[in-house]
Amino acid sequence: MAPEALERLLGRPMELRLGANESNFGVSPFAAEEMVKAMEKIGWYCDPECFELREELAFLHGVTRENIVVGSGLDDVLSLCARCFLDPGDHAVNSLGGYPTFNYGVQGAGGVLDLVPYKNDRTDLLGLCEVARSVGAKLLFVANPDNPSGTWHSAAAIAELIENLPPECILLLDEAYSDFAPPEAIPQINVADERVIRLRTFSKAHGMAGARVGYAIASAEIIASFNKIRMHFGVNLVGQTGALASLRDPGFILGVINEVERGRTEYHMLAASHGLETLPSATNFVAIDMGSFEKAKATLDAMLKRGVFIRMPGAAPLNRCIRVTVGTESERKRFGEEFATVLLTS
Amino acid sequence: MAPEALERLLGRPMELRLGANESNFGVSPFAAEEMVKAMEKIGWYCDPECFELREELAFLHGVTRENIVVGSGLDDVLSLCARCFLDPGDHAVNSLGGYPTFNYGVQGAGGVLDLVPYKNDRTDLLGLCEVARSVGAKLLFVANPDNPSGTWHSAAAIAELIENLPPECILLLDEAYSDFAPPEAIPQINVADERVIRLRTFSKAHGMAGARVGYAIASAEIIASFNKIRMHFGVNLVGQTGALASLRDPGFILGVINEVERGRTEYHMLAASHGLETLPSATNFVAIDMGSFEKAKATLDAMLKRGVFIRMPGAAPLNRCIRVTVGTESERKRFGEEFATVLLTS
Repeated sequence: MAPEALERLLGRPMELRLGANESNFGVSPFAAEEMVKAMEKIGWYCDPECFELREELAFLHGVTRENIVVGSGLDDVLSLCARCFLDPGDHAVNSLGGYPTFNYGVQGAGGVLDLVPYKNDRTDLLGLCEVARSVGAKLLFVANPDNPSGTWHSAAAIAELIENLPPECILLLDEAYSDFAPPEAIPQINVADERVIRLRTFSKAHGMAGARVGYAIASAEIIASFNKIRMHFGVNLVGQTGALASLRDPGFILGVINEVERGRTEYHMLAASHGLETLPSATNFVAIDMGSFEKAKATLDAMLKRGVFIRMPGAAPLNRCIRVTVGTESERKRFGEEFATVLLTS
Repeated sequence: MAPEALERLLGRPMELRLGANESNFGVSPFAAEEMVKAMEKIGWYCDPECFELREELAFLHGVTRENIVVGSGLDDVLSLCARCFLDPGDHAVNSLGGYPTFNYGVQGAGGVLDLVPYKNDRTDLLGLCEVARSVGAKLLFVANPDNPSGTWHSAAAIAELIENLPPECILLLDEAYSDFAPPEAIPQINVADERVIRLRTFSKAHGMAGARVGYAIASAEIIASFNKIRMHFGVNLVGQTGALASLRDPGFILGVINEVERGRTEYHMLAASHGLETLPSATNFVAIDMGSFEKAKATLDAMLKRGVFIRMPGAAPLNRCIRVTVGTESERKRFGEEFATVLLTS
């Protein structure tokens, strides 16, 4: 449930918003300035080709504009993937309790979902690949680093997965959290490989979730397929402008990444101080192991009642955890206090 | 072609942008202020339910929130309609040379298009209905007022069309330009009628084309179908905020509508002063009859070369016209000068 819906349901505002892995460090001041300036042209349709943004992204990733499609957030891009590559009845594979938006896209396209449980709190690459083979899946979704666990695989493990993909199966490699990950978790981009679509977003490190900008990097042939069915004007002017500007302010993004790393360490230490374990994280959130679903659910509910918006994974074995976004220093402090109170009184 | 693409192709900026029926009167100052304020929360995901905006729209139209879906522009909503109601091979009907975005949605969903020529420069309601019946169409698209002609039918004529729709055919009534139309062109909204989906946008009178906000009004059952497949977070924060604020500044919109009416009259008089006829218009643009496709095309090209972005309808019989958006007073004056020069030198 979205925090706005929760607020309406509970009849109170959320005082701490640490549930949706947004960036509470906001957007680059340069990007903010450019977005406000862009408002002067809000009466005009935005560039349907996202030309400048694609050019900048192509330069960043060492590919060409023809290897990039921009969407209204990864929400949009995932739906494009499902509609492009699934006919009704075709199979698609995701982790059980993995990122749900992919599943919505699959179901919207009439596809059939096959879900593979997490293994050792990580996406089960071997298991996913085996199921994809056994059902003849057209799409396999892997988030690396993963949401909601926060854990990750090495680039080498992902490369091995790609080599073992069944024929005609495309890997959707969701790297929304890649900015927070160690470099060795991110495989080199190779747009000659038609078996992989890389997915990136401006909603995390770039702090622009409300602006709706995500993109895919893939072979020119795959991108051309997307162009046949995508919305023409899907990426709004403020989003296009802000994304472009944010790419040109890498110093700000680096600062966010560093602060997120500091925050993760604080959360790990906070949990340890209460005798709780955490899952390793290469994202802007940390999953705290509460020991059981019941305990995790009770903690979540108690926190919500106190105006602290956090979430928990939707399926076993991860649903013994609560998932907490790394907020600002003061938000982390406040979270620590609320968490301690809830633990004491439960 | 988008004006940005034209500029890249011609290697020069467009000095007058009068081709995309945008509102060069901009957005309500109150909405602009609210959008800039919203930027402070751009790091947060927007409300996926568009709750407040839907509530305001429901109040405006005398319906409930359950009768409204908001999309990332009508682009998004038209694609939803096609995906919801067309199986591959299903037929959909539009006017030949009518609003193309509907056609893209149909083709993206694997549907088959049947196109009916304009009659007396208006959408041919009887012809559209007959073709829809003969092919067993699932969707019939009518823009009223129409783009690219600018002409319109009465609410009574639309009501008659609805009564004559073949079984299982839904009318998509695109009313993007309804703010500029006489009240007698707009049928009363009746969400009990499952045969009609009304489409509205913030891209025209509200001057927010770059913000991407459009919506559909329909029966709760139809809207529930859209909710099953729509993007969760498709409508960006700035768009949601601006649309809500703009609805609360009706005085500004009224000013735009009045100025557009004045501008239309100027264009009609300008054309007459050159011995040219215009099509009647209930929109924010006027189609000027150049007498032939060749003359219209030559005029368009000459105007583009002078940095004046205008467009022309894509099919006979309307492609004897050029289509000019009503700009601001100074833009209209400048257009008049450029037009006179082009007519003199050709």
